Amino acid sequence: MTPSDALQAWLADRRELVDRALDRFLPTAARAPSVIAEAMRYSVFAGGKRLRPMLALAAAEATAGTDPGAETAATLALPAACALELIHTYSLVHDDLPAMDNDTLRRGRPTAHVVYGEGTAILSGDALLTEAFVLLTREPQPEAVTALPSGELARRKLEAIRTIAEAAGAHGMVGGQAIDLKAAEPGAPPLGEAGLREMHARKTGALLRASAVAGAIMAGASRDELAAISAYGTHVGLAFQIVDDILDVEGASAVLGKTAGKDAAAGKPTYPALYGLDESRRRAEASMARALEALDEVRIGGHLPAIARWVVARTH
Amino acid sequence: MTPSDALQAWLADRRELVDRALDRFLPTAARAPSVIAEAMRYSVFAGGKRLRPMLALAAAEATAGTDPGAETAATLALPAACALELIHTYSLVHDDLPAMDNDTLRRGRPTAHVVYGEGTAILSGDALLTEAFVLLTREPQPEAVTALPSGELARRKLEAIRTIAEAAGAHGMVGGQAIDLKAAEPGAPPLGEAGLREMHARKTGALLRASAVAGAIMAGASRDELAAISAYGTHVGLAFQIVDDILDVEGASAVLGKTAGKDAAAGKPTYPALYGLDESRRRAEASMARALEALDEVRIGGHLPAIARWVVARTH
Repeated sequence: MTPSDALQAWLADRRELVDRALDRFLPTAARAPSVIAEAMRYSVFAGGKRLRPMLALAAAEATAGTDPGAETAATLALPAACALELIHTYSLVHDDLPAMDNDTLRRGRPTAHVVYGEGTAILSGDALLTEAFVLLTREPQPEAVTALPSGELARRKLEAIRTIAEAAGAHGMVGGQAIDLKAAEPGAPPLGEAGLREMHARKTGALLRASAVAGAIMAGASRDELAAISAYGTHVGLAFQIVDDILDVEGASAVLGKTAGKDAAAGKPTYPALYGLDESRRRAEASMARALEALDEVRIGGHLPAIARWVVARTH
Repeated sequence: MTPSDALQAWLADRRELVDRALDRFLPTAARAPSVIAEAMRYSVFAGGKRLRPMLALAAAEATAGTDPGAETAATLALPAACALELIHTYSLVHDDLPAMDNDTLRRGRPTAHVVYGEGTAILSGDALLTEAFVLLTREPQPEAVTALPSGELARRKLEAIRTIAEAAGAHGMVGGQAIDLKAAEPGAPPLGEAGLREMHARKTGALLRASAVAGAIMAGASRDELAAISAYGTHVGLAFQIVDDILDVEGASAVLGKTAGKDAAAGKPTYPALYGLDESRRRAEASMARALEALDEVRIGGHLPAIARWVVARTH
């Protein structure tokens, strides 16, 4: 297998693990009102790369070492991985609303508000965000990780929840979306380079970074390892966003599952608009290189380097 | 002082404590995008009874006993009390949206989406919900409660977060709002008595119950005390909702700060519509009595009985 084949095999296996866990963790119509249980599942199982769960699991496996071992790393980090996907999904559902980006198509399917109406879409997003925190507190249960003292498990959970909540809230993802929303208002001044960086760092970067960090926290990474994973996550997040902007310009609607060129058409600031395509691609590569350097400094790797390369090389 | 005067003095003191803490905990424009920090504060400081924080603090004080003492009970439960108010406020912001209840007036002031626009209102609600979890994980910091081993503090925090998240999510508050939304659709079948009870138990009851329980968890209540507090919270929650329905029929717009009779006019099911005003009032009183009985069984009280009486006697 080439390195890329090895990553593909790992991704396929871990995606299946995550999807099975999401199916197990999500509310069912037996206990929650059926309309909300159904709308949550519609958006969660709409496809998607599961990038945030993959970062969490890869970071957990890379930092767990041989003790407690990779299997336990997955057990420890799987609930956080799923919670991150729930939070990412909620953000998409709310971003797609008529009052926000007004997108009717996502991953090639009608968006939640088109299918369930605006009110239920808002509520399903609220529920996805809230259930993420139910999951983070409840799982893994102490009985499932007997190798760990229950006090240590509680400490890790709290640190992971805080990391994720801080990245998702007003200082992170929601704050970034607010900047985006304001910048798209008629007559708003253009964001400029610093504004664009801040928006992306909050809107996309913060949760991508938190995904890797939360996975590592659950696996019991050392302070040095956490700092390296945090730097890795920051650089991968930036690379991801630059490539997203490039794909929005280059991509075809069919491949992206959304309307190509939409951001540029809406007058949203993008890296290609600021720097051109070639320089944007160069910057994405440079961010990837810095992500790999951060890992090298503490000698951790696993699937993390390959994920960074995949983020930059992806075509959708 | 009459018992009622004693409660009023306690409420005034604790509300000030909660409002000062909310001001300290909420994001500022220095670190978060200013539009989102401002919109969050606008809705949080719009007045309101702070019933959920009061239930949390009263339950903490009632179950803490003399060791670690009432002061420490407030220190332990104050962050949870504030987080509960953030979650309650987010639910109001989202419920008021055009796609939901379409309310333009709340507590006598224009609602968030009227002031900030629909997109920012949705985001400010998302941010309030998320910051609640930041707060619950971060505070109180171990240094502030040295009387408690840090492992025990982490255990209590996790249990409180889980209790609150479960009550706020698809099985609780959001689920109840989804039922409400569906019942208000043109041509929807009437909810009936069982449907009305389920809707209220989820939409309002779950978080009121969780408020009292989370406060008691943070104070280190025993299992028996937690069970009693849980029953108390359930009965107070039902009484609260029946009285809310009664006030909607009887109340004047000026007193409620919202349009009176609006629920009935919208064809929403209410207790007075199902049972008439007299029987509704009798049921509210009966729920209050059951709340007091639950406390009596484990011999706890403090301000909890007076709060139950206030919930039923209130005129707004």
